[in-house]
Amino acid sequence: MKLADLRTPALVLDRAAVARNTVAMAARVRQHGVRLRPHVKTAKCVEVAKLATEGQFGGITVSTLAEAEFFASHGFRDIIYAAGLSPGKFDDVIQFRREGVDLKVLTDDLDVARALSQHARAAAVKLEAFIEIDSGQFRAGLDPEAADLVPLAKLLHAPPFLTLAGVLTHAGQSYHAKGAAAIQAIAEDERRALIRAAERLKEAGLLCPVLSTGATPTATLGTRFDGLSEIRPGNYVFYDLTMHSLGVCRIEDIAVSVLASVTGHNKKAGHILIDAGFMALTKDQGAHDFLPDVGFGYVMDERLRARLPGLSVTEVNQEHGMIAARTAQDFERLPIGARVRVLPNHSCATSAMYSHYNVVDGATETVIGRWARCAGW
Amino acid sequence: MKLADLRTPALVLDRAAVARNTVAMAARVRQHGVRLRPHVKTAKCVEVAKLATEGQFGGITVSTLAEAEFFASHGFRDIIYAAGLSPGKFDDVIQFRREGVDLKVLTDDLDVARALSQHARAAAVKLEAFIEIDSGQFRAGLDPEAADLVPLAKLLHAPPFLTLAGVLTHAGQSYHAKGAAAIQAIAEDERRALIRAAERLKEAGLLCPVLSTGATPTATLGTRFDGLSEIRPGNYVFYDLTMHSLGVCRIEDIAVSVLASVTGHNKKAGHILIDAGFMALTKDQGAHDFLPDVGFGYVMDERLRARLPGLSVTEVNQEHGMIAARTAQDFERLPIGARVRVLPNHSCATSAMYSHYNVVDGATETVIGRWARCAGW
Repeated sequence: MKLADLRTPALVLDRAAVARNTVAMAARVRQHGVRLRPHVKTAKCVEVAKLATEGQFGGITVSTLAEAEFFASHGFRDIIYAAGLSPGKFDDVIQFRREGVDLKVLTDDLDVARALSQHARAAAVKLEAFIEIDSGQFRAGLDPEAADLVPLAKLLHAPPFLTLAGVLTHAGQSYHAKGAAAIQAIAEDERRALIRAAERLKEAGLLCPVLSTGATPTATLGTRFDGLSEIRPGNYVFYDLTMHSLGVCRIEDIAVSVLASVTGHNKKAGHILIDAGFMALTKDQGAHDFLPDVGFGYVMDERLRARLPGLSVTEVNQEHGMIAARTAQDFERLPIGARVRVLPNHSCATSAMYSHYNVVDGATETVIGRWARCAGW
Repeated sequence: MKLADLRTPALVLDRAAVARNTVAMAARVRQHGVRLRPHVKTAKCVEVAKLATEGQFGGITVSTLAEAEFFASHGFRDIIYAAGLSPGKFDDVIQFRREGVDLKVLTDDLDVARALSQHARAAAVKLEAFIEIDSGQFRAGLDPEAADLVPLAKLLHAPPFLTLAGVLTHAGQSYHAKGAAAIQAIAEDERRALIRAAERLKEAGLLCPVLSTGATPTATLGTRFDGLSEIRPGNYVFYDLTMHSLGVCRIEDIAVSVLASVTGHNKKAGHILIDAGFMALTKDQGAHDFLPDVGFGYVMDERLRARLPGLSVTEVNQEHGMIAARTAQDFERLPIGARVRVLPNHSCATSAMYSHYNVVDGATETVIGRWARCAGW
């Protein structure tokens, strides 16, 4: 199978780029003496998770119970479900533990902790829970100085059925910070928040076995990881234009792209039409703040070797993408039927529009595999 | 099965609302003496398409070849593929016709028409093609006065293998026009564009059998359809907050919503967390221009009877939605574990994030069915 045989739009994954990204992250964690628990929410793909966990301890992070089910069924057993647990999902979590999956959960709430403890005891199933700490994202989690921290830890420390796994944070604010210095400062906030929370727990006589941090920007550019147990970056397996716009990766590190066909020329309006609209690309414009010409993605040649000078997808409807032409040559370069690759603003979002990846190995024509994604919740 | 049994986030479809919307559109086309060829790109669902085509001639419109395959396999045989055809899809189209599916295609380009004609002749398969006309959207299509119109029609009129099906337009600009008067003016542009194009073809001695127009705003609010053969609205089966923001539908006409659970309270930041982020809602903010408080959707009670006063999803990350609380009562009203329904900005986009609809009939607890969607390309 060749790229030319794929019906467009199609999602293309460059295995060589994924391998480079995962090897680079493996080198970083080895250098810093911290373990790597990749977040699988970006790729949602067993083959990618295998590359990311190669040589690591094998733990992963998931964002949905559907991911937990999918990866558990493929042999991944040490899993953190890293979104705040609500009571409606307690029974699902119990079921994972009954099936021998070491699924750990997350909360920042006293009532949830109390209810979870009762639930674990009633079910006679052993659960482990993390306390979510806020390190400056202001989304969820307790401030490391919060009055609730020790009471929450005490509720979560109810052996034998409920055990405190540790403290966990995600510095999502790093997705809006540009440059190594800014991101390194956030990485330090992330690290210090956990160390401070763990310190307070120890002072209260509580065990805090794991300090789990990480986001792709801080994991890629951070310089200090001492005192941490593990990091959980996810996006780095693919990177994207948002990460590029922050200075976290190079264009050539971006491992997924959308293969699209030119379907029309509108010379009067000055744009080239492609068959990749918002269903194929999403409306995500995450790179826009620091890459104002990004539109809905950079337009690259069919082999993904280089950006076509100045070209972006400038507008999207459901199945129509529009590329503003800059010169008459743009129309000549992209005749109807020509194919392009579009680099996404946000690889987590764009990949989710597809059931599978068409895998290539570098700038070649040959499709070497079809890797499935999991979907849903 | 009850709503309470669904793992969240989940997509809920109110069958009663779909039935009201499809009955209302059926009454409109009957009144105006025009036939209805619903666009199935919004629901991508056989059961919804059956409601939409009940009592109609049975033709549908699709936005992808995957939809054409899915609906053809469920007995829909008269299909317009209403996105500009590129040469890479010729063989697929030929295959449909060989299998007895009356798939009609669309172009506005002389080179594509020439190549399509050669392809049909070489394959000895009969194809029908529409000329795409621009009625003010400035996306694709020929201006009705374009010099290329008659030459294009002549290329597409190459019996017995290629026949001109007619002229087709979509006034997508109506998605940005507020109020009946503005939308009625666009509907009239849409109608006149086709009538003028057909007139020019007739003057040139060419047959133009079908004049096919339609978008949900113009189909719902337009007052004149004379001279047209058919209309192709799609979104009206579900409507959404974008349509509501334009004055095209009422809140209670919106037939799809996302069931979500409250997963956290961040009193310091002033928001309630839910388990519906951009994967569950998308980042579409189509209603924002005319409904500035829309955010990523209105937050309704669990049975979708009313909006919780002033509440919207104000921010989304991958699996986290945030609802800005306005008062302390908002936290009390929405304890962790409570469930809400979120009305989408754009039902076509949000529905695409799910494999199926959980079907209810009005403001009830009972899930009466699970209707599948098709996906991909």
